[in-house]
Amino acid sequence: MFVSDAFDVNSQGHLTVGEADTLTLAKQYGTPLYVMDGAQVRANCRGFVGSMKRAFGENGRVLFASKAFCCKEMCRIVCEEGLGLDVVSGGELYTADAAGFPMDKICFHGNNKTPAELAMAVEKDVGRIVVDNIEELSALQAAAERAQKTAYVLLRIKPGVEAHTHEFIRTGQIDSKFGFAIETGEADTAVAAAAQYPNVTLMGFHCHIGSQIFEMEPFLSAAEVMLDFILHIKEKTGVEYGELNLGGGFGIRYKETDAAPARQAYLDAIGEEIRTAAAKRNLATPFIYIEPGRAIVGDAGLTLYTVGSVKHIPGVRTYVSVDGGMFDNPRYILYQAEYTVLCADRALAPCDSVVTVAGKCCESGDLIQEHTPLQTVQAGDTLAVLSTGAYNYSMASHYNRNPIPPVVLVENGRSRVIVRGETYADMCARDV
Amino acid sequence: MFVSDAFDVNSQGHLTVGEADTLTLAKQYGTPLYVMDGAQVRANCRGFVGSMKRAFGENGRVLFASKAFCCKEMCRIVCEEGLGLDVVSGGELYTADAAGFPMDKICFHGNNKTPAELAMAVEKDVGRIVVDNIEELSALQAAAERAQKTAYVLLRIKPGVEAHTHEFIRTGQIDSKFGFAIETGEADTAVAAAAQYPNVTLMGFHCHIGSQIFEMEPFLSAAEVMLDFILHIKEKTGVEYGELNLGGGFGIRYKETDAAPARQAYLDAIGEEIRTAAAKRNLATPFIYIEPGRAIVGDAGLTLYTVGSVKHIPGVRTYVSVDGGMFDNPRYILYQAEYTVLCADRALAPCDSVVTVAGKCCESGDLIQEHTPLQTVQAGDTLAVLSTGAYNYSMASHYNRNPIPPVVLVENGRSRVIVRGETYADMCARDV
Repeated sequence: MFVSDAFDVNSQGHLTVGEADTLTLAKQYGTPLYVMDGAQVRANCRGFVGSMKRAFGENGRVLFASKAFCCKEMCRIVCEEGLGLDVVSGGELYTADAAGFPMDKICFHGNNKTPAELAMAVEKDVGRIVVDNIEELSALQAAAERAQKTAYVLLRIKPGVEAHTHEFIRTGQIDSKFGFAIETGEADTAVAAAAQYPNVTLMGFHCHIGSQIFEMEPFLSAAEVMLDFILHIKEKTGVEYGELNLGGGFGIRYKETDAAPARQAYLDAIGEEIRTAAAKRNLATPFIYIEPGRAIVGDAGLTLYTVGSVKHIPGVRTYVSVDGGMFDNPRYILYQAEYTVLCADRALAPCDSVVTVAGKCCESGDLIQEHTPLQTVQAGDTLAVLSTGAYNYSMASHYNRNPIPPVVLVENGRSRVIVRGETYADMCARDV
Repeated sequence: MFVSDAFDVNSQGHLTVGEADTLTLAKQYGTPLYVMDGAQVRANCRGFVGSMKRAFGENGRVLFASKAFCCKEMCRIVCEEGLGLDVVSGGELYTADAAGFPMDKICFHGNNKTPAELAMAVEKDVGRIVVDNIEELSALQAAAERAQKTAYVLLRIKPGVEAHTHEFIRTGQIDSKFGFAIETGEADTAVAAAAQYPNVTLMGFHCHIGSQIFEMEPFLSAAEVMLDFILHIKEKTGVEYGELNLGGGFGIRYKETDAAPARQAYLDAIGEEIRTAAAKRNLATPFIYIEPGRAIVGDAGLTLYTVGSVKHIPGVRTYVSVDGGMFDNPRYILYQAEYTVLCADRALAPCDSVVTVAGKCCESGDLIQEHTPLQTVQAGDTLAVLSTGAYNYSMASHYNRNPIPPVVLVENGRSRVIVRGETYADMCARDV
């Protein structure tokens, strides 16, 4: 009905998420409140896992990019659904470990892993470490040698493919802090270096071309570049590296005007193309990893707020102030990200006004959405911002000393807290 | 020597902050690390307090805008220096209270205080509550009535003055989520409403015109508008409201090319002008509040990082990756904020390269500074970003599940932790 199947309306006209009444949730847990629909998360997981299975059989794996939404319960859910995990820091790795996630199904990313993070990844026998740069390769060898272990690595390659997306979240082009460039010879040097290091075993390559992508072409172009690179290395060294991680970036719907991603057809087509492209080069189809993050959790979540004031400025605009803001959702001030906003009390009522939804932080730029259609609302109404499951909780700050809201998981109408909300005492706990 | 007196170089060529060697601090406490020079904070406090005393005698007060940097020790320091406190949330109020800050010297701001925050402010007898909108005025009356107390309030007024600063941090103009507009009659209505409420006592007015302002004219224009408004209300109601809070926004130096603010002369001139402007209108000089935040702490702080990798991309740019990023300093990705970056190991060596300093987050936009002059550096070097005392720690997030770094206070060469660094266990403590 709305931007995803997670959201609906009940007989009272209230917005629901995972079949739970959002007004009841707001009353029970307070606002601001993050809510995730577990069933939608699982459906998204199954969609990706199913497509990968059809395309590559046992020769592929879906890794959930936990930077989109990381907490212990989320690690448990993706584990139950058979996904691996993409982590980008010691903190995400620690969380996965604390949740009992199998370390061999983890891929450790990042452009600048610290020596402590590398040591931790080696010590915990993380499945794959994606090495970003030459200093890191050498630091990893040192860490693995100290631990008397072998580190299994992929090298992050810049495929030079540019996704048509927001400038900030473009990553495949040569002007990027991430990875080894092919055209400069860096990537060749890294392969040769990895082959020399006794405690490092190179398994293959990784690329990532951006975020919130709907087109198939950039993925396919990147895959072709990577297969060419695998072929080039095979011709040069005689070794055919057998793993290819194509990263994530699968787009989701934020507004009703966004195209619905035909994800299954899309992944199936990508699988087909990759098999063909490999065969054309006389290469075996590599073991393929993909790393959806937003596409697993984004459309499964919403945020609930209470309206505090409505300020009509004649001839200018109407500000609707809510009890959250850039501390729980910095994506508007960061990227002018678009969202669908609804009055949860009467979700089907016509949107008869156009308003700016403002947060409560002492900063003019603290807005959740500008010039967005909305039902006429007043103080005390509950506002829902849809598709906030990705990069909202994970980017939350304590700006203005506002506590980070709790996260509630809803499954089949039943709700439970999966991340406890911060208290004022929590925020002062580290103050001397 | 650098952008503020807090920073210097010792005989080994190492950058110092508050007379402490930054390399020693980095070694002792690890990186990333926030460091504040207590002496510089106190000198900044004394500068403002001295100017206000010269301008207004006992008839003025400096409030530290704690949103710039809030922790218990900071509350203690500004209390010792005789400042009041501007808080913008229950969290900041709680912190001040936990530090033993006198509640009567606190001014509570915000465009959307929650009912719980209003009740807390009333219960704790906060000195002044700055009321932003008509719903809040009514909610405050209700809260005060329930508590059988009187709330002493200022009304936030939009003076219609626009500071020449970054669009996001402009706040005085009519298109703002903050305050009552004069020209629409809203402000008059609010004064009349406040007079009717038995548990609310209106003491005066507040305005704030923006951030990082160096010019005197916007402050003076705003003060004139506010004095005109006080006169208008006096003529209309017979009551001369005696308090005027002119907000903050005093600029600091981030780069050597920034003008050094002649703050004392500037504040003295503002004082003189306000006295003259009041006398011209046959008004008593109001009790004046000012609210510096950044100007108290900004140039007293720096952040230390360790370089992880240096990536030269021929013909494109050089990326220097550090172990922090947008999680400890989101001001570049938010506002493209400028900073001075130095190699702390050899702070006086010539800056012979131009680089982009990148953070460790898995996001291309995670940059600390682009195209900045820097000494030639390599993995293991310590980098210092200067003037990070304001809006760095206070805006920090756990993005990518990176722990928030500790804050160390240096005074006369001796250092101590004032905010303990987060651990991985801290980050998981609220996960179920």
